[in-house]
Amino acid sequence: MRNRYFSSEPAQNSAALALYESVKDLPLICPHGHVDPRMFADPHYQFGSPVDLLIIPDHYIFRMLYSQDISLNDLGILPLGAAPTSADHRQIWGTVCDNWHLFRATPTGIWLRDELADVFGIDLKINSANAAAIYDAIEERLSRPEFRPRALFERFNIEVLATTDAATDKLEHHQAIRDSGWGGRVIPTFRPDAVVNIDSGGWRASIDLLSEAAGVDVHDCATLIQALEQRRAFFKSMGATATDHAALTAYTEVLSRADAEAIFARALKGEASAKDAARFTGHMLIEMARMSSEDGLVMQLHVGSWRNHNPALFARYGRDMGADIPIRAEFTKNLKPLLDRFAARPDMTLVLFNLDETTYSRELAPLAGHYPILRLGPPWWFFDSWLGMTRFLDAVVETAGIYNLVGFNDDTRAYPSIPTRHDVWRRVCADWLAGQLVRGFIDEEDAFEMIRALAYDLAKQTYRLD
Amino acid sequence: MRNRYFSSEPAQNSAALALYESVKDLPLICPHGHVDPRMFADPHYQFGSPVDLLIIPDHYIFRMLYSQDISLNDLGILPLGAAPTSADHRQIWGTVCDNWHLFRATPTGIWLRDELADVFGIDLKINSANAAAIYDAIEERLSRPEFRPRALFERFNIEVLATTDAATDKLEHHQAIRDSGWGGRVIPTFRPDAVVNIDSGGWRASIDLLSEAAGVDVHDCATLIQALEQRRAFFKSMGATATDHAALTAYTEVLSRADAEAIFARALKGEASAKDAARFTGHMLIEMARMSSEDGLVMQLHVGSWRNHNPALFARYGRDMGADIPIRAEFTKNLKPLLDRFAARPDMTLVLFNLDETTYSRELAPLAGHYPILRLGPPWWFFDSWLGMTRFLDAVVETAGIYNLVGFNDDTRAYPSIPTRHDVWRRVCADWLAGQLVRGFIDEEDAFEMIRALAYDLAKQTYRLD
Amino acid sequence: MRNRYFSSEPAQNSAALALYESVKDLPLICPHGHVDPRMFADPHYQFGSPVDLLIIPDHYIFRMLYSQDISLNDLGILPLGAAPTSADHRQIWGTVCDNWHLFRATPTGIWLRDELADVFGIDLKINSANAAAIYDAIEERLSRPEFRPRALFERFNIEVLATTDAATDKLEHHQAIRDSGWGGRVIPTFRPDAVVNIDSGGWRASIDLLSEAAGVDVHDCATLIQALEQRRAFFKSMGATATDHAALTAYTEVLSRADAEAIFARALKGEASAKDAARFTGHMLIEMARMSSEDGLVMQLHVGSWRNHNPALFARYGRDMGADIPIRAEFTKNLKPLLDRFAARPDMTLVLFNLDETTYSRELAPLAGHYPILRLGPPWWFFDSWLGMTRFLDAVVETAGIYNLVGFNDDTRAYPSIPTRHDVWRRVCADWLAGQLVRGFIDEEDAFEMIRALAYDLAKQTYRLD
Repeated sequence: MRNRYFSSEPAQNSAALALYESVKDLPLICPHGHVDPRMFADPHYQFGSPVDLLIIPDHYIFRMLYSQDISLNDLGILPLGAAPTSADHRQIWGTVCDNWHLFRATPTGIWLRDELADVFGIDLKINSANAAAIYDAIEERLSRPEFRPRALFERFNIEVLATTDAATDKLEHHQAIRDSGWGGRVIPTFRPDAVVNIDSGGWRASIDLLSEAAGVDVHDCATLIQALEQRRAFFKSMGATATDHAALTAYTEVLSRADAEAIFARALKGEASAKDAARFTGHMLIEMARMSSEDGLVMQLHVGSWRNHNPALFARYGRDMGADIPIRAEFTKNLKPLLDRFAARPDMTLVLFNLDETTYSRELAPLAGHYPILRLGPPWWFFDSWLGMTRFLDAVVETAGIYNLVGFNDDTRAYPSIPTRHDVWRRVCADWLAGQLVRGFIDEEDAFEMIRALAYDLAKQTYRLD
Repeated sequence: MRNRYFSSEPAQNSAALALYESVKDLPLICPHGHVDPRMFADPHYQFGSPVDLLIIPDHYIFRMLYSQDISLNDLGILPLGAAPTSADHRQIWGTVCDNWHLFRATPTGIWLRDELADVFGIDLKINSANAAAIYDAIEERLSRPEFRPRALFERFNIEVLATTDAATDKLEHHQAIRDSGWGGRVIPTFRPDAVVNIDSGGWRASIDLLSEAAGVDVHDCATLIQALEQRRAFFKSMGATATDHAALTAYTEVLSRADAEAIFARALKGEASAKDAARFTGHMLIEMARMSSEDGLVMQLHVGSWRNHNPALFARYGRDMGADIPIRAEFTKNLKPLLDRFAARPDMTLVLFNLDETTYSRELAPLAGHYPILRLGPPWWFFDSWLGMTRFLDAVVETAGIYNLVGFNDDTRAYPSIPTRHDVWRRVCADWLAGQLVRGFIDEEDAFEMIRALAYDLAKQTYRLD
Repeated sequence: MRNRYFSSEPAQNSAALALYESVKDLPLICPHGHVDPRMFADPHYQFGSPVDLLIIPDHYIFRMLYSQDISLNDLGILPLGAAPTSADHRQIWGTVCDNWHLFRATPTGIWLRDELADVFGIDLKINSANAAAIYDAIEERLSRPEFRPRALFERFNIEVLATTDAATDKLEHHQAIRDSGWGGRVIPTFRPDAVVNIDSGGWRASIDLLSEAAGVDVHDCATLIQALEQRRAFFKSMGATATDHAALTAYTEVLSRADAEAIFARALKGEASAKDAARFTGHMLIEMARMSSEDGLVMQLHVGSWRNHNPALFARYGRDMGADIPIRAEFTKNLKPLLDRFAARPDMTLVLFNLDETTYSRELAPLAGHYPILRLGPPWWFFDSWLGMTRFLDAVVETAGIYNLVGFNDDTRAYPSIPTRHDVWRRVCADWLAGQLVRGFIDEEDAFEMIRALAYDLAKQTYRLD
């Protein structure tokens, strides 16, 4: 249905369709996501079974099934250290389809349906009766060369795709992509969380990896900074235009050199407190902002997710098991030390993301509507949804305009869902702008320029992807 | 008007009507409310005057009149300890009708209008001109046998109605209902607030009542637990399937046995601090969760109401005078100690309610969309309204789906308003699902199954009312 | 377009138009704003250039341009202490028009467009191509006598306009207006922030001004109170019906006389702490409530703006530079000490404003729906917008009704935008009530009475402007 998801009011519906059609074929700018670069390094990469591709890596899907007492084991997810079993993927697929009603009216439900139709050409409703036929059809498609990652990249019309990579990553897959002569633009993003958040699991080991990767013996805060600067330069040389930082809160603080070194020393000895960790992260965010103001890498900050909230699940299956729960966020006070230092740096851009919608109108839009360095990322995670995106536009545009936004991020590891996710964003924007148009807030010229900005230009400009 | 309250957009309107009509005659499941069981114990129970029935017990109504400087005395509400007066109920009714414009566009206004029409067959607008005629008509209806509680129970097509009863209640009215041979299913709910919240007014006296009711000398925390377990077993034997707990916040904490006993001892001496009270409540919530995981009673938690916020009013008239004001709520951190212990208990269900809508999308939907034991109660109190329910569905369904919700609670002491309240919920769900349908997020099969779940099945399943 | 901004659904659209037309010509009640009284004192007052009138004083406009790296200097705004330059206002206007796309779908964009059309009779789209023509047209209009402030006052059909004036203001412009024999009703509002918030810049100097203005030697808290009471009486004699108070939070506290005097003494010595300041402001809010309960001046409280968030900008340009950022707000706990004392005073009215929309449904509506002295101010600042006002009505009316609201405040220093701002409010209310009407929540009689109340009556009654 060409006009799916648009308002059922005829005037808005037809305006939305016209706006949507003006951008639906624009290339995809994917400035932030978690696709594995390995799949582009190897021209013969195969996705595995439909369950390998669509279920096992997708915590959006299995968390909902888990919430209704379906065990992760039954979905093909193995406990840490368990020997690989020959799980019956066809049976797992059946379990998923038997319970697909759980996803009614959810973005996960919409993405998979649209992805099956638009990417795989499968128009069957996902349910028990169709489970086997859908499985067979996906399996058949995946066996074809045109469903390999590079072929899909071209078919998806991706102009650029950024991965997210640890500060210690040697980027060998990115190097292999470059060496291969393939024309797709896949670039890394510098994410140093594992070495700057001293409470990360395995922090000490990450520091050793960093020393090795940077060729700098990291033994104090000064050498940490030196190593990070070295790695940023390397990432930049490999095409990176951005960094990404995750923190529980947006707290920033300028530590004295002595305090920073004392905390680092305690961390090395395994004696750092939770407060040490929060302060050190806040200090490193300011250091990272300083580096961005110098090297021009766009800084992204994602805050507000309490990771691994379910300790029993974490102990058994590890991280990213759908047990990350949002908390309240605050920016006006927390970001002030950073803004006090870098508000006026002309070459700096800081893109903010969080999981507390109350910040949209109260803090984020007023901040972005004043500070030149700030831009607002699109709705993140649970809010990457029709209503979530609509609420975001409702909450921020009146105060910040659309030109302090950054367009869309698909932010996904589910590679074949990328076109669907961009399509939903483009449809939301079309519908929202059509509402503005038919009510007379904006005119047609405005609306067509705005949808192009939201669908394509803002992402490209903000992330310096020209 | 058959299609009242639905979107005026014709496609959505007709879809909503079809959905609504598929569920409007389903029986009512009333798993949580405050109807007085006495009215079913006595087959000849009479409601008193229209003011006795509709005004004096309804703090939704008199708080709004009070906010506009109408005194509670003028509404027939007597100060504590005042001698009963022969207030002129016809004059009170006139005062209410003279000021009924205050309720324009409020749920209270809608409920009373719909109740008069649908239950009492009175189609007059509530205003000064019609005050006497409406009073007379209600009075006439109330004199008829078919307006006695049991007759209405059958006419309302109530399948089951749960009351809310103190842990110390002997449930003699429930016993009388059972003994009477009447077929209506009225069951108790176990609510131990008065004995587990050590800062409750009259806590010490409640402990004595508990000792007596349980036949256990409650003198420390261990005997308190023992008495509560005994009472739960008794409630269960009387048909209870659930417990209910009110707390200012969702704070939970596992106290050591020594700490718990020390606090209890201070409470007995009247020396417990506010912090003691908060910690003890948090500890008892975990004990209650443990008991629920053992006896299978569904646990309900209502948080976020600052009770009796107006001290002058409280001193003069007592509690439940419309002066309870919401506060901010938090679950991600506060519930973690409880979830850490009981997240994986297959027989446990915890239903969450609160008065801070910001928690819907930020905390509640992600929590319920992960933890098997969690379900989300419908919008509570001020949010039991057309827009409140619509915002709730908008905020939670995309993340939690509808199958982690519990359908509807009428949560009322206003017995004759029960069908109206369920009707509003069913209409909201029909309108909301129709919006999803006409935009193409769901199809007709989905929509009809979802409305049945929201109107009937989920409440019955969650509260184990089969 | 007569029906601009209304829902595109035909039934709602025509109902909205009928409601709007019933109130569009009612006089404007302007009970709170920041228009300079000087412009009415001088019958020959001239507005200066279009940039002097529309850009330089409007932080809504220049903050957005600043957020996109356009310097304030280029907009005609001079650093503190800079010598006046002969900036080319025509060029500044060109810069603004070149960047006017930034304001698409913002209230600022709508206000200026509607103001140009409705006040200045200029129907050109604001863009680069039309910049010069628009500038010329405005300039031509401003040269005409019918565009002087008093002539516009009459053309705008302003019934009463309240300014906002420091407690130390001698109100000589108000006196001049009275003496002039002109019939326009322009009244002062008493705003004592500079003398009661001991952390205000220049507090010590303001105290000296207060001593002089009141004829009271203010040297301690008791003489401060005495001076304030004297000034309130003077303001009242000059026509004031209200006071206004700004605070970072709604915190209130009753200090002992000794504590209050100790803090005041520390403040005089320049030794008061941030905590002292917060407590003293909280104490003075209670004193001000006490005075309002005695002299009948309506008390307004605006909380939640972190003023001058950007220190570099503040140092260079001073205050009100578009760098005020909202913070979270709380009322249930913070206002309790004040409410405990004055909840029942029949002659007292307290109007609440803040910048945290989460308080609307959670705290403000329940508080106003109970306490007789409380009324809710319209959405403030960033929320004085189509969607902001719609969200406000959605969030508060179901709980507080409309009769605990105060209608509209334009709250602006942009005098010629006043009719446009009231027009947007009247259109929002018409559209919102039309939605209630076509869905059957209210009937026509209700809707027409409600829009009149929201457009005119409630402001006049609340602010005692009869």
